[in-house]
Amino acid sequence: MSTIADVAARAGVSKATASRALSGHGYVSEETRDRVRSAAEELSYVAHSSAMSLATGRSLSVGVIMPSLDRWFFAELLAGVQEGLFAEGYDLVLYGIREGSAERARLFERILPRRRFDGIIAVGIQPSAHELERLLRVESPVVSIGAYSEGTSAVSIDDFAAARIATEHLIDLGHRDIVFLGGQPDAATHAVGDRRRLDGYLAAMAAAGLDDRAQHAAGAPTMPGGYEAAVRALGDRRQRPSAFVGVCDEAAIGGVVAARRLGIAVAAELSVVGIDDHQHAEMFSLTTMRQQPRLQGSEAVRLLRARMDDPAAPPEQIVLPSELVVRSSTANAR
Amino acid sequence: MSTIADVAARAGVSKATASRALSGHGYVSEETRDRVRSAAEELSYVAHSSAMSLATGRSLSVGVIMPSLDRWFFAELLAGVQEGLFAEGYDLVLYGIREGSAERARLFERILPRRRFDGIIAVGIQPSAHELERLLRVESPVVSIGAYSEGTSAVSIDDFAAARIATEHLIDLGHRDIVFLGGQPDAATHAVGDRRRLDGYLAAMAAAGLDDRAQHAAGAPTMPGGYEAAVRALGDRRQRPSAFVGVCDEAAIGGVVAARRLGIAVAAELSVVGIDDHQHAEMFSLTTMRQQPRLQGSEAVRLLRARMDDPAAPPEQIVLPSELVVRSSTANAR
Repeated sequence: MSTIADVAARAGVSKATASRALSGHGYVSEETRDRVRSAAEELSYVAHSSAMSLATGRSLSVGVIMPSLDRWFFAELLAGVQEGLFAEGYDLVLYGIREGSAERARLFERILPRRRFDGIIAVGIQPSAHELERLLRVESPVVSIGAYSEGTSAVSIDDFAAARIATEHLIDLGHRDIVFLGGQPDAATHAVGDRRRLDGYLAAMAAAGLDDRAQHAAGAPTMPGGYEAAVRALGDRRQRPSAFVGVCDEAAIGGVVAARRLGIAVAAELSVVGIDDHQHAEMFSLTTMRQQPRLQGSEAVRLLRARMDDPAAPPEQIVLPSELVVRSSTANAR
Repeated sequence: MSTIADVAARAGVSKATASRALSGHGYVSEETRDRVRSAAEELSYVAHSSAMSLATGRSLSVGVIMPSLDRWFFAELLAGVQEGLFAEGYDLVLYGIREGSAERARLFERILPRRRFDGIIAVGIQPSAHELERLLRVESPVVSIGAYSEGTSAVSIDDFAAARIATEHLIDLGHRDIVFLGGQPDAATHAVGDRRRLDGYLAAMAAAGLDDRAQHAAGAPTMPGGYEAAVRALGDRRQRPSAFVGVCDEAAIGGVVAARRLGIAVAAELSVVGIDDHQHAEMFSLTTMRQQPRLQGSEAVRLLRARMDDPAAPPEQIVLPSELVVRSSTANAR
């Protein structure tokens, strides 16, 4: 069986360089990496990952914590993280565990301290929460997505601005009775980003002197959640809003479906704007604030690599832009 | 720092039992497991996973290969697998990599042979393909989901029967011009299950003497794919079908949305049936064949554990039932 020394000799590099090239840790030029990988392949070199891990103190794996796997945003994010880690030669160890569950407590109290991850990517961790504190004690670099914190590197969009701009788009079209659709009113169960979006909507309403018309139709930030909230908000014929800002595209699409069912013409009688540019947004002609969760995932991997290479570097926070995409679900108020 | 011997002594069991209780491998009574875990916790015992892996020859991790992360079926499946593995104390190492990609080839040729997984769960691997052959050479137990194979344990539904029953439901309602909506006609790009569903539809049509009316409106098995296929199928007013069988609920919902947009009344003028019972099926009042991907995921974990405990046991294949859920998207033909 070939050793790392055999691979290094065949590639004409030092053992340390060969090891770096195969592990993905530390800088190696593209050309050298290719040469070492070819040599390893020719020699059928197979590193025993556990032995390599003990020798280098590295596990070549990254723990990824997600609150949900079955929603578009998280699935896209996971795909971006997966692509990034795979390209860098890291295994992605997935913990898709709902907040507040017993499993979640076990993860933070017992499992993370025991595992030797080279890094952790945590999605939607509440910055003030006990969980973040536990994470920072694990001594692996941590990057969070969708939540800011002074202690960690982070990737997010500006949720406040996204909702503010979406609301301003409706105000510019002459709308006054604009309802914020979806998301939970209770701060404890409200996802961090959803809360900021509600605040962005409220700020835009206040700036236009519409404070007293601001209204939140609460519900799950999902298509059925938006549907139900919209049915309630549209229930009274005499007091119908003329526009919805969805907490996310799924909630907004739920609003579109509800309107069609009730015989209310989208755009002509009811404008709807979302936040996401979800894969189904185009099919529903939804005007929306576009964000790119896949890009957020790959940016998180980039930040994590930077912290792995230089653990002493200060945490870096990236706020990715979101942009208004106007389709035909919004129109001038009548 | 405490050792496994300290933990065993405190819990009053042998080292082997303590190790079994903490690793999740091999039988330990619930009560003993709890006692050992408490002892470990009291002693702040932290097993070094790499050292444990070298000592036991086990990695306590399972590789999970998925062709896609961003569709309902796969996301639900992944959630089921994740819950099952987490409960058993195994790490889930995720490879969400599209079929036919360069990354996919690298995974099968270079990465899987190098990693030491205690087991592999592979979703939607084509049974006749090169990839399966590589998998079986890895020498870890393999469980596949959604594809049958003689060499591996497998979990699936009876895709053929699901589509046959869905089609028979429409035939019983008096429909004759029934179009199969979504899925690719080309066998090379057609997912195994989708191909079997098309065959089930064709069999039902043939059994009712409707062979010559059978028609496949091809398209991606997604909501936009079904939408576009439906727009084409409904385009000619004089030759409109009276019913759709969706290759999956997402395609069927695309058909419902297309019909509403074209001013065709679902049920009254066009019946639509899907396969899945997707999280959005109820919102669209969709009649469908219910399957439970989460259950398929947890059953796969159960089969994998059985093979880990007894690698010599013959492969086991589980076919889970699917059942017709009648909502209001289907009605008697006019």
